[in-house]
Amino acid sequence: MTTLTAERGASGTDSRDHVPLLDALRDAIGAAYVLTDAQDLATRLVEDRGLRSGTAIALLRPGSTEEVATCLRLCQTAKVPVTPQGGNTGLAGGGVPDGGIILTTDRLNRIRQVDPTNATMTVEAGCILANIQAAADEVDALFPLSLASEGSCQIGGNLSTNAGGTAVLRYGNTRDLVLGVEVVLPDGRVLNDLNGLRKNNTGYDLKNLFIGAEGTLGIITAAVIKLFPKPTARATALVACTGPDPALALYARMRSQTADTLSTFEYIDRLGLQMVVDHAPGCSDPMVEVHPAYCLIELTGNGAQADLDARLEGALEAAFEAEEIIDAVIGASEAQKDALWALRENLSEAQKPEGASIKHDVSVPVSRVADFIKVATQACMDHMPGLRPCPFGHFGDGNLHFNLSRPVDMADADFLAEYGAFNRIVHDIVHEMGGSFSAEHGIGTFKRAELRRYKDPVALELMEQLKAVLDPGQMLNPGKVL
Amino acid sequence: MTTLTAERGASGTDSRDHVPLLDALRDAIGAAYVLTDAQDLATRLVEDRGLRSGTAIALLRPGSTEEVATCLRLCQTAKVPVTPQGGNTGLAGGGVPDGGIILTTDRLNRIRQVDPTNATMTVEAGCILANIQAAADEVDALFPLSLASEGSCQIGGNLSTNAGGTAVLRYGNTRDLVLGVEVVLPDGRVLNDLNGLRKNNTGYDLKNLFIGAEGTLGIITAAVIKLFPKPTARATALVACTGPDPALALYARMRSQTADTLSTFEYIDRLGLQMVVDHAPGCSDPMVEVHPAYCLIELTGNGAQADLDARLEGALEAAFEAEEIIDAVIGASEAQKDALWALRENLSEAQKPEGASIKHDVSVPVSRVADFIKVATQACMDHMPGLRPCPFGHFGDGNLHFNLSRPVDMADADFLAEYGAFNRIVHDIVHEMGGSFSAEHGIGTFKRAELRRYKDPVALELMEQLKAVLDPGQMLNPGKVL
Repeated sequence: MTTLTAERGASGTDSRDHVPLLDALRDAIGAAYVLTDAQDLATRLVEDRGLRSGTAIALLRPGSTEEVATCLRLCQTAKVPVTPQGGNTGLAGGGVPDGGIILTTDRLNRIRQVDPTNATMTVEAGCILANIQAAADEVDALFPLSLASEGSCQIGGNLSTNAGGTAVLRYGNTRDLVLGVEVVLPDGRVLNDLNGLRKNNTGYDLKNLFIGAEGTLGIITAAVIKLFPKPTARATALVACTGPDPALALYARMRSQTADTLSTFEYIDRLGLQMVVDHAPGCSDPMVEVHPAYCLIELTGNGAQADLDARLEGALEAAFEAEEIIDAVIGASEAQKDALWALRENLSEAQKPEGASIKHDVSVPVSRVADFIKVATQACMDHMPGLRPCPFGHFGDGNLHFNLSRPVDMADADFLAEYGAFNRIVHDIVHEMGGSFSAEHGIGTFKRAELRRYKDPVALELMEQLKAVLDPGQMLNPGKVL
Repeated sequence: MTTLTAERGASGTDSRDHVPLLDALRDAIGAAYVLTDAQDLATRLVEDRGLRSGTAIALLRPGSTEEVATCLRLCQTAKVPVTPQGGNTGLAGGGVPDGGIILTTDRLNRIRQVDPTNATMTVEAGCILANIQAAADEVDALFPLSLASEGSCQIGGNLSTNAGGTAVLRYGNTRDLVLGVEVVLPDGRVLNDLNGLRKNNTGYDLKNLFIGAEGTLGIITAAVIKLFPKPTARATALVACTGPDPALALYARMRSQTADTLSTFEYIDRLGLQMVVDHAPGCSDPMVEVHPAYCLIELTGNGAQADLDARLEGALEAAFEAEEIIDAVIGASEAQKDALWALRENLSEAQKPEGASIKHDVSVPVSRVADFIKVATQACMDHMPGLRPCPFGHFGDGNLHFNLSRPVDMADADFLAEYGAFNRIVHDIVHEMGGSFSAEHGIGTFKRAELRRYKDPVALELMEQLKAVLDPGQMLNPGKVL
């Protein structure tokens, strides 16, 4: 058995230093579920994209809420911190251990209850998001949370990061999709708030304290999530605009004319579309002319397909007349709609062959999103001529992935050396516009310095007070968020 | 000047004991806004329905967030607790002072910003709900929060109690309608989290800690609230059922067939309808036959009126065939729709001429709501033959106002002596069904004992820990919630 000793975290990462704790953990959850072999730990020590790695003594795989509680009690007694992990697909380094022990929720993978009439499902933290979507589908319902990693991310991680995704415009963030939670606190107490109630005003809102806390205040072990009527129709279009301003006018029109059937309003810069056309297999530009910017629009509804089509077409006709759009392609079949979506879904991947990219996950009020694209693009271009800004994303949420591809002839390393400088330029503009430097990815380890820089000081103080009262021993997910 | 000395609260209620504090407060916010005269305080010392009254040294009317902060700093230094008040329309006694000082938000009544494109409005705590609704209407938008007291309740109170109302089914509770808050903490620090962002994952969710905390953790002084596209059509029906079971089947059908156009699904027992017909001026039974139970159903949408009408009619036809409903009246004009709504809106008032009533504001999972009505009705009838149960309310939210009118020939006082016994019967059944003993009215002073009885013990501990860390001096709204 090889034990990982390459680096030592705060509490040491040599399992030989922790024989009594590991023995007690083996007694509690079974030796098969206390892993210390380097091979078993390897994928658990690195962030999904390999940007950050850590160390750990062991990986725990408890099989029940009670076992999670026992693990935390034993670790607290031994003063060994615990990093909770779901699918380890986070984009801010929140799951990378910093010494101590990794606790994965992967064995907490039961769907405890499906209640179609209450439109709820009670799921354990380790359920894979795609499996939850499928279980909802089986009762002819929709669980709308949808994101790129849905085939491997776990709902516990989605809750802990308050994940966003492509359905926020209509259904809200993960926070909005949860009615109740079960949480193991750092000292092993279990908060049982697994209610499936639409209305419950009995005291402070504890649920939302743990949702989005990135596992630093407690480990969410189960949740009651909301289901929705499954849409029976969708109408999808890719439209072309002369730039972000008409795109914003179009958004306002769509929201007003199509109201809450509007499910998707995504922005794609020409450069991004070009990269998809150049690099994503099977993707081609559906328009004859080249245009400066595009929006992917989708309406979903529970009425007749023809009604929804008519609504989309009516709104787009008016948008043409108002010169908000200059071209449009409406998906005439499900295959065509999927093809339009592929242009959006391949954006992240298509940027990779173009060399290093500096990414920002920012939001501003929707009324500022066009201004933001213009101002931030100009400021970044001023900082580095030849830069290829590639803004795209959830325009209708005010949330852009403001990605910058390096100049064509610059070395990746030289470009990435400017990461901090670009962060400062972009985040300062975001801040000035009342926005957020982390719209959907969270803080993790990557954005702790930005949190210190931009967060309201009283909010920071309150966060520290909450951490101190809920996790006085700094036992949970050390080095994250705060 | 008469000073209130009838009763002394924890910190005394004689303003002569607090001359230096009152002088400092006068200096800070102006003598005209520090009221100690009994006449000025009178309406502020009693709960809306006169069920509970308290005492106070003075009433403060600060005119800005900064003045609220100064008031709290001065009161904290003097160790005099503060009871925040909005419109004083709460139904759980949360605004009744217990000695100390009352701070009203009534002068914080500016709408700071309306941003139609971002679909947000920034409002100060003292804005009257109806004024906010009107301001939204002016920009052709909807602020959906709607409740009986909307002409006098203040948005700060709505936030502090996480108010429910009649639009929850489609738009959620108050909590779901808020993006950002500004809060003055007990020590005078000001949390500035007035963001208008749809997505913002930068640390712990502080907003929801103060929403629904009934002014015990901080005073919300302003908020960014969400606006929605104003529906252009509504289709309204009153349907009759043989009882709660078919009503539940009907609800499931409506949700499935009409999806998120379903805005209202309210339940009315025959006895309740009869009381409205007997006592509410202008109200009459729109059906020829007498039926055991009724549901008020409304769809709202942004498409054509004819489409919505067709959707409602289609669903109701199917419900007839499935024997879920036995009669139906569809509102053919706006006046007819209003008349159907009046049957629901007059329910509370119409119970008063029938003598004393024991009220419960409970929720269960929607899938249990029919069972709850049957089981709780039977249990209460068993306890007191002749009792007249009158359950009504937000069936589609699982939230019923399970009101019990006294037997026809019983004295009010004899009946009300059974308040505790009925509470126990009803709340035990609610609890057993995974429900809540306070769905939308909160805890205040009225339901503190129930909180102790039914709340998860770890949740209670966490609430106490949060109160201790945020308000260690027990300065804010003493004697409420915990």
